[in-house]
Amino acid sequence: MNLVSFEGNKDNTKINGSGPVTSAEPVQPLDIECVEKILNYRFKNKSLLVQAFTDPSYDEKCVSYERLEFLGDTILSMVITNEFYNLYPKESPGSLTNLRAANVDTEKLARVAVKHNLHRYLRHKKPLFDDQVLEFVKAVKKDPTLPHSHGLLTVPKFLADIVESTIGALFMDCNSTDTVWKVVKPLLEPIIHLDKLEKHPMTELNEKCQKKKLTLTTKDTWEETKNFFFLY
Amino acid sequence: MNLVSFEGNKDNTKINGSGPVTSAEPVQPLDIECVEKILNYRFKNKSLLVQAFTDPSYDEKCVSYERLEFLGDTILSMVITNEFYNLYPKESPGSLTNLRAANVDTEKLARVAVKHNLHRYLRHKKPLFDDQVLEFVKAVKKDPTLPHSHGLLTVPKFLADIVESTIGALFMDCNSTDTVWKVVKPLLEPIIHLDKLEKHPMTELNEKCQKKKLTLTTKDTWEETKNFFFLY
Repeated sequence: MNLVSFEGNKDNTKINGSGPVTSAEPVQPLDIECVEKILNYRFKNKSLLVQAFTDPSYDEKCVSYERLEFLGDTILSMVITNEFYNLYPKESPGSLTNLRAANVDTEKLARVAVKHNLHRYLRHKKPLFDDQVLEFVKAVKKDPTLPHSHGLLTVPKFLADIVESTIGALFMDCNSTDTVWKVVKPLLEPIIHLDKLEKHPMTELNEKCQKKKLTLTTKDTWEETKNFFFLY
Repeated sequence: MNLVSFEGNKDNTKINGSGPVTSAEPVQPLDIECVEKILNYRFKNKSLLVQAFTDPSYDEKCVSYERLEFLGDTILSMVITNEFYNLYPKESPGSLTNLRAANVDTEKLARVAVKHNLHRYLRHKKPLFDDQVLEFVKAVKKDPTLPHSHGLLTVPKFLADIVESTIGALFMDCNSTDTVWKVVKPLLEPIIHLDKLEKHPMTELNEKCQKKKLTLTTKDTWEETKNFFFLY
């Protein structure tokens, strides 16, 4: 794949800065070239990228990523809806909603951030940043292929925010949802598709019980047995 | 304003099919030209427009608008977010969220549908269609300039659905969010802007009471007095 520039695919050099999941050492100020390599995209307006990687805690004089994250959230939702709409022409809106939700949720996006080391470039002054990221990175390392823990992991929201603010910056730079998708799709891989769409274990359990006309009683016995549920 | 075709603005004739709010008489089969005049846009793929105006009740052999409505919902959210993001460069995500919510909510979109007579073209077999639409149209006629009733009106959801499915069809036809916004913006007018953004009366009342350290007690006395709230 070529480096996507704001002018199109003129650079034929294969450049990719993504690597294995590593520890959390924020690099400040922003190394624009490194982030562009990870994204495989060259920004026309570099200040957008700087803004996308500036946490509100960093410096009150700097514009933080919050507005770009807000924009990126809706752009991501749109491009992924469009992808699934075209990919699954027979699927109902309900099914497409589940697919979209699985791919844009906080844990999925936080996994994207650490997989591509985006978190290392966040400019911030968050005192608990290292601990929070390291705990998440450690948990992800245990099974990096797992798409989702279904709420078992504590996910630092700012990790997902970085992905969304980057998407917002991309759109502001290129004004093309097609280009955004071209850049973002490889980062989001593995994208969760219909055949891999897992129901939340509680939803599955409830459905199975309903089918067999069993009443489900839940009891928290974590302290004693390290198990949560009993089925009657 | 010119008729926007899928090739751009090549037609210089001013055509606009929108008129005053009228009664609900569904026209079947779809008069494509009339709808295109209302939208000020010529579809390359007319079948998209037909699908956008086909209710699930119409004929089980026909593809209904449900998937296009799902797509249109996210496209509308994206184009309006982008508009406000650029229009208000200093506003916080919270403020932009309120602005967006006010402009894409069911009542606002249902008002758009009846203002431009889009409901008259819906292909359906809904037994209560006429009554539901007429009741809403009558209420809107009382004050067509009002942007919102804050929940006092009963809004038939399918009216908002038509607007969203039309937006989905537009995007599928032109694959350009810029073109979608160019076509949809005039239909959405009056767009609710920051200076016109009204808080829900209950939110405002609660905030005022909190400010003055008053406890708000609500009592439903509609039957006796036609008033709802007492303030102590």
